[in-house]
Amino acid sequence: MTPLDKVGEFGLIGRIQQTVEITQPSTILGIGDDAAILAPAAGQELVISTDLLVEGVHFDLTFCPLKHLGYKAVAVNVSDIAAMNALPTQIVVAVSIPARFTVEAVEELFEGIKLACEAYNVDLVGGDTTGSRAGLTISITALGQVAAGKAVRRSGAGPNDLLCVTGDLGGAYLGLQVLEREKQVWQADPESQPELDKYPYVLQRQLRPEARMDVIHELRDLGVVPTSMIDVSDGLASEVLHLCQASGTGARIFTENLPIANPTLEVAEEFNLDPIMCMLNGGEDYELLFTVPLADHAKLKNHPDITIIGHMVDKSEGANLITKAGQPVPLKAQGFSHFG
Amino acid sequence: MTPLDKVGEFGLIGRIQQTVEITQPSTILGIGDDAAILAPAAGQELVISTDLLVEGVHFDLTFCPLKHLGYKAVAVNVSDIAAMNALPTQIVVAVSIPARFTVEAVEELFEGIKLACEAYNVDLVGGDTTGSRAGLTISITALGQVAAGKAVRRSGAGPNDLLCVTGDLGGAYLGLQVLEREKQVWQADPESQPELDKYPYVLQRQLRPEARMDVIHELRDLGVVPTSMIDVSDGLASEVLHLCQASGTGARIFTENLPIANPTLEVAEEFNLDPIMCMLNGGEDYELLFTVPLADHAKLKNHPDITIIGHMVDKSEGANLITKAGQPVPLKAQGFSHFG
Repeated sequence: MTPLDKVGEFGLIGRIQQTVEITQPSTILGIGDDAAILAPAAGQELVISTDLLVEGVHFDLTFCPLKHLGYKAVAVNVSDIAAMNALPTQIVVAVSIPARFTVEAVEELFEGIKLACEAYNVDLVGGDTTGSRAGLTISITALGQVAAGKAVRRSGAGPNDLLCVTGDLGGAYLGLQVLEREKQVWQADPESQPELDKYPYVLQRQLRPEARMDVIHELRDLGVVPTSMIDVSDGLASEVLHLCQASGTGARIFTENLPIANPTLEVAEEFNLDPIMCMLNGGEDYELLFTVPLADHAKLKNHPDITIIGHMVDKSEGANLITKAGQPVPLKAQGFSHFG
Repeated sequence: MTPLDKVGEFGLIGRIQQTVEITQPSTILGIGDDAAILAPAAGQELVISTDLLVEGVHFDLTFCPLKHLGYKAVAVNVSDIAAMNALPTQIVVAVSIPARFTVEAVEELFEGIKLACEAYNVDLVGGDTTGSRAGLTISITALGQVAAGKAVRRSGAGPNDLLCVTGDLGGAYLGLQVLEREKQVWQADPESQPELDKYPYVLQRQLRPEARMDVIHELRDLGVVPTSMIDVSDGLASEVLHLCQASGTGARIFTENLPIANPTLEVAEEFNLDPIMCMLNGGEDYELLFTVPLADHAKLKNHPDITIIGHMVDKSEGANLITKAGQPVPLKAQGFSHFG
């Protein structure tokens, strides 16, 4: 194990730089100068988004392997690019690293970052590495490209548009519940072994989420252009309200349509948690929530990765969850407060 | 004073968003969606750079006003854009904020960020705000534009090129010495008043540095295109070595040519510090170090903002400081270790 101060900041950057590959045609110059140089293709607009992951707020290194953390840090940024209907092209990564870290630990983090770069076809073109007096912080800014005028905003939904979500919901939140329970057990008895093998699905949802770039490509293949889109990072209820607010509409989503995976449902039962609440307020699923014109119903109704969960309505009706009994329940953004 | 958890993340973003103005023609959509949308002008390349400022590593809130800190966080990023010979266009800002902060404190930080945006003609187009279990962290990514092929890298210097630096050096480092001394006095006797009024120049250099965009514009007006460029963030010696390494050259810089301001010299004497060492290894001056062809000598020799400190030589000669007595002393990158 190599202490960080033995290689220093430039040594560390040199080690990371050596293993980085440039594959995007729009990357002219990557890591190693005062800034990277990019040449976006003609007729393209850029999208840019930034996300910060903070130890003790967004992740707990007790149970989060650094490689997974690096992968997740990229995936959550790519998810924002996907939510604009754009293709990710470059990222820059700034990390502040506690002195207790070894060079090998930092390299493991960057292994995960580079794995995600390969998976999403993104170039790592720059960054900053500094010390930290407290925990690890990872700040990633992602760039993407989209044909001029084709970016999808939160604000384009109209009444009667179908409201769709990719994949399934609630898993990441229940993964977190499992990790927190096992941590408490382990803190009480450091000799105990965490029982994690029983929960592969929800743990993967929490520790190593994927951005739904696959769906962006599928929608293009189907000729479906969402009228509005957002990624589900703070829980479904919060995101539906964001689309409604930006678009000036209301929404109706139906309890019986909300997609949940069987392993998620089982863990919810084990923890005595209402699965509907886990889907609405759980957060960190990184699925895409989007609206399409009613005319696209036939194209999406049997799509394996997409569920039609409801539709937009006039603003005056508000945003409601319709229970199995047909009762409307106003949606509230419980979400997740980092400042609580 | 308003506690952060009273307004929450969305409330805080809303407050910041309300006061942000968009002035760049290339900004299509700013804060408020999953990503910002940008449309770079035809024939332009983009440059992108990211910098992280961490409490306890890069700044100390005991003496650093939040407004200055916000300004500085933008300026250091713009300095990287300037060092590519580009004009800054947009920034995104991610902050992790300790619970002890009030809403008003965060707004003060963003006041400084917005002041710098106005000063450098940059749009604040996105960001992320999260909690922090420890100190304040500010991560800024800056974008800039430059005509295709006109970005200046570290790697273009040739032997005989003149080596130039803007402004003067060592001030920021001596400003830090003053702040650290006064902090010690204050910690020993909390009733004492810090003696800061005597040191306006070096304190401004430390607390509120400017990116040298003015010089970028002046060089364009003069028709001077640097062959290589870097910003002086880690001390002159480290930056000269970076240019030499990237360009495959050596360098000779002359002690008697190094620019230092009189107030900086006075503080160096007061602290019994060698002013040459402060210039070579002090860091945080955010001046520009660049090379130009010998033919540009006449254009720059009397320029008030630019000093010719030496010239590049063949790689085999190495990088040396030439003393008044004509003795060569090899340059070493002392720089600044965040991991120490």
